[in-house]
Formats: sequence, C-alpha cells, structure tokens
Amino acid sequence: MTAKALLPAVRRVLGIDPGSRITGFGVIDLIGQQRHYIASGCIRTPPNAVLAERIRVIIHGLFDVIDTYQIHEAAVEQVFVNVNPAATLMLGQARGACLSALVLRDLPVAEYTALQVKKSVVGHGKAAKEQVQHMVVRMLNLSGTPQADAADALAVALAHANLSTGVIGALARSGLKIRGGRLV
Amino acid sequence: MTAKALLPAVRRVLGIDPGSRITGFGVIDLIGQQRHYIASGCIRTPPNAVLAERIRVIIHGLFDVIDTYQIHEAAVEQVFVNVNPAATLMLGQARGACLSALVLRDLPVAEYTALQVKKSVVGHGKAAKEQVQHMVVRMLNLSGTPQADAADALAVALAHANLSTGVIGALARSGLKIRGGRLV
Repeated sequence: MTAKALLPAVRRVLGIDPGSRITGFGVIDLIGQQRHYIASGCIRTPPNAVLAERIRVIIHGLFDVIDTYQIHEAAVEQVFVNVNPAATLMLGQARGACLSALVLRDLPVAEYTALQVKKSVVGHGKAAKEQVQHMVVRMLNLSGTPQADAADALAVALAHANLSTGVIGALARSGLKIRGGRLV
Repeated sequence: MTAKALLPAVRRVLGIDPGSRITGFGVIDLIGQQRHYIASGCIRTPPNAVLAERIRVIIHGLFDVIDTYQIHEAAVEQVFVNVNPAATLMLGQARGACLSALVLRDLPVAEYTALQVKKSVVGHGKAAKEQVQHMVVRMLNLSGTPQADAADALAVALAHANLSTGVIGALARSGLKIRGGRLV
C-alpha cells in the first residue's frame, strides 16, 4: 500500500487562532492539491466574565464547530504575544481550553508558529497581517475578507494543508502527532 | 429558609495546584467546621510529550479524580511563576486544561492567589512552603507529609473551606462564581 492509497478523498481541517477574548476558527477541505472554503468565524467570550466562564464558552464553541462540520484534523497557531506576563498567562489558558476541546474530540493536533504560517501562505516570514489576509482570500476564492481572527485561523488551516500533505498528513491522521511541521 | 438550611451535610472540595509537568490535587470533606482528608496526589505528564498529549493526560487525570471522589466544588490556585514568557504560557495552558476539566463536569470553580492561600492556612502571606505543608499536615491530622504539589493542592482546598463557608459557599454551590474569595 502506498502513502497515496492512505489518503481519503477529502481532509477537513480546522484551523484555530486562540485568544482569551476572541478565538478565530476556519474550516477548509483539502482534496488533493485543491483547498475549499467551508466556514469561518469567531468565538467571543463575554466581557468581564470570570475565567471559568470564558473557558466554558471557548470549549463549547469549538465542540459546536467540530461536531457541525465533522472535522478530521486540527491545526493551532502558536501565538505568542508577550505584552506582559498576565496577558501571556491568559493567552495560555485560552490555548489550553482550545487544545482540551480538540483532544477530547480525539482530533490529531498540529501546531505552527506565526513564522511558519506566514512563510507557508505568503512565501516569506516577514509578511504583514494584511498580506496574509489577502492570500487567504485569494487562495480560497472568497468574495470578501473574513474578520481578522477568522482570517488568521484560515491561514493556519492553509499552512497545515501545505506542510502536512502526503506521508506526514497520513501519519497525522493515523494519530501520530506533528509539532512545528515535524514528526515528534 | 436560612443560609444554614441550604448547607448539605458534607461539602467535598477538590483543590488543584496546576503545572505543566506536575498537577497536584487534594480532596477534603467539609462537615460544618471540620475538615477531613479524603485523597491527594499528582498527575504527571510524560516527559518530552507534545502539548496536546500533556493536555490529554491532565484532563483525563482530573476527570478520574472528579468521578472517583464525586466532587461537589473546586478551587484552583492562581499560580504565577514568571520565570520566562515560555514557562508562563506553558503554565497557562496547563491551567486552561484544569479549568476545562472542571467546567466540563459542571463544578463551581473558585480561584485563590498564593497569598490568599498562605494567609488563610498559616495566618500570614509570607509563610514559607514548609510552613504551609506543616499546617496542612496538622489541620488534616495526616500521618506523613504529602508530595509538595499534592500538599499545595490540599492547602488550596483548605483555603477554600475557610474563605467560602456560610452564605458564599452556599452561593458557590448554587452555581454563582467566586473569584479571589469575592463574588463576581
């Protein structure tokens, strides 16, 4: 059996851009070298809500997306905005909630840095946010520009599509984990 | 109906000291002013495991504890070790996984700072780790000293017992959230 024979007709990928206030998500289908837009949006946590409530909203929001769109695999951005330690801790907690939702639905999870996403989608790591969004719109033939966090999430899904095709993608689907595009 | 009438005979509290490598847990029963030790221990994540695997181990470990001991309410330490941004992000992710497990089991969640725990258990906020552990052993009549993270988790549970009794405890059990010992 060749690696190609392992590939299903369609891989449905969920990309996530985690945040404590807004978590962006983007769903695309990979059919061979084609990428098709399925859905995207934001999960917003209530302002002034306590942490447990924010966590609850993020998890159940992602459960809804995973179940509604029957996701096969997921990719999460290794966001890292070091504004201050409290903000970093808060971002970590939101990421932890996102990853919790993914592992509880038994999805293979890949992680990519912002640099990897930019390189993969635009072609170089110093691309501006607007360039990434422009490429997302172009690669997925969108009629408008999605909200910023949703566009970032779609970029993560596209990066995963580019970096995980072939044998690595097949291994990812078999349950092995990928980190930073490398098998670990 | 008075606040007292709302109190059940026993409140079973789970205290948690989150960490990316070791998450301590401690279970105690509160019966009026009495505190009884039920269980304590550590959830250890596999060394060198990818993040998603660590998250999986923490969540399922806490699900086991919650289900085995039929927990009523939970208290989590607001740990904050700012060694470096990467460590802070990692700690946040572990905390996010802990809180995910608690909210998915519909437990009321309280959070306390290390300062609040020390003040409540030892009497002043500058207590050394060993003093906290000593008081945990004494207050719960333990025959030996638990592992450090388990002892910290028991201290969080004891702080919650001290800071949330009476009306606030009853409100916590009714589903309202407490943060830092204050209703929000």
